[in-house]
Amino acid sequence: MKSFRKELWFDIPQRRAFINITSDVQRCLDDSGIREGLALVNAMHITASVFINDDESGLHHDFEVWLEGLAPHEPVSGYRHNVGEDNADGHLKRQIMGREVVVAITDGRLDFGPWEQIFYGEFDGGRRKRVLVKLIGE
Amino acid sequence: MKSFRKELWFDIPQRRAFINITSDVQRCLDDSGIREGLALVNAMHITASVFINDDESGLHHDFEVWLEGLAPHEPVSGYRHNVGEDNADGHLKRQIMGREVVVAITDGRLDFGPWEQIFYGEFDGGRRKRVLVKLIGE
Amino acid sequence: MKSFRKELWFDIPQRRAFINITSDVQRCLDDSGIREGLALVNAMHITASVFINDDESGLHHDFEVWLEGLAPHEPVSGYRHNVGEDNADGHLKRQIMGREVVVAITDGRLDFGPWEQIFYGEFDGGRRKRVLVKLIGE
Repeated sequence: MKSFRKELWFDIPQRRAFINITSDVQRCLDDSGIREGLALVNAMHITASVFINDDESGLHHDFEVWLEGLAPHEPVSGYRHNVGEDNADGHLKRQIMGREVVVAITDGRLDFGPWEQIFYGEFDGGRRKRVLVKLIGE
Repeated sequence: MKSFRKELWFDIPQRRAFINITSDVQRCLDDSGIREGLALVNAMHITASVFINDDESGLHHDFEVWLEGLAPHEPVSGYRHNVGEDNADGHLKRQIMGREVVVAITDGRLDFGPWEQIFYGEFDGGRRKRVLVKLIGE
Repeated sequence: MKSFRKELWFDIPQRRAFINITSDVQRCLDDSGIREGLALVNAMHITASVFINDDESGLHHDFEVWLEGLAPHEPVSGYRHNVGEDNADGHLKRQIMGREVVVAITDGRLDFGPWEQIFYGEFDGGRRKRVLVKLIGE
């Protein structure tokens, strides 16, 4: 069994953003030499997500509005977590969008349907944060 | 390490439905000859889900009503994604229900608790769509 | 390829609770002798979750209030699933919080960011329930 590990680093100035990391993950797969197996891609921080959906800016706007409706940032004082913090909403938003994705590796490629793309979802930006790419297989 | 790959195809006439695919996945496992490992089952489309919950029609009705409350289909014009599309709500619903499940394979069986069943969740039907079953192990 | 399997048992008297199980999972990893691979940790019951977030009591209170807003327990009669049952809301809450986590195993450790902790989320307590820990690797 082969394994491969790499961290992807982000420093996103705004509070929230969606970043397409599909090509970064594919590059890890190329470097690993793994042809058959599983890829785990997860946020290493608990106010961030890794998820798979469409790379379409209108949809990303819809996600932003929708998540803000389900878990609003304001009023900051409405959350008990926000004692010296203001990111409770980010912990909640990340549960909706998910921590991680697991992707099949087939014939050296991410085994995707036609529109699947991997995104990093930032919900509490303004500092350096990481995504872990871990690949196992042969 | 052994690996196994199969696509399950669906063509669901209605917009939304939940389909029990547990026996299809178990059949893949039987065909693979894998006794110990992990099973990944994921939607290959971004307005569909694979999830594990109860096979009970009342609950499925509750899911439908609940998801429609959290991410309503109408008004279609309320989503920026819906330019020549009407499925933005399906992209959102799929985030709640999830893209994939990972299931332990133990002694050649899906290693499940008493009520766990795997479902395909369709949120934008009326065309052919796929689920990927990828198994790795020994 | 090595594999390891263990069930963690819970009997939580109250209806809902969050329990930190990180050290239990690390103990499984120690017992397994696996140095590189993947850890799957999943609820074996469909009104419970396994998720990764912060071990902070204020945040757990926020989760409780938030989930109760998104999928209220009352009125029990508002759910079709609740015929001889009263746990429909638990099935819904578990979809938000997730069934499982997959964690990278690197150098014999759970490969975590600085604040990642694994929790069992109970949404229908008062009886014995299980979490499955399945590890594969070398």
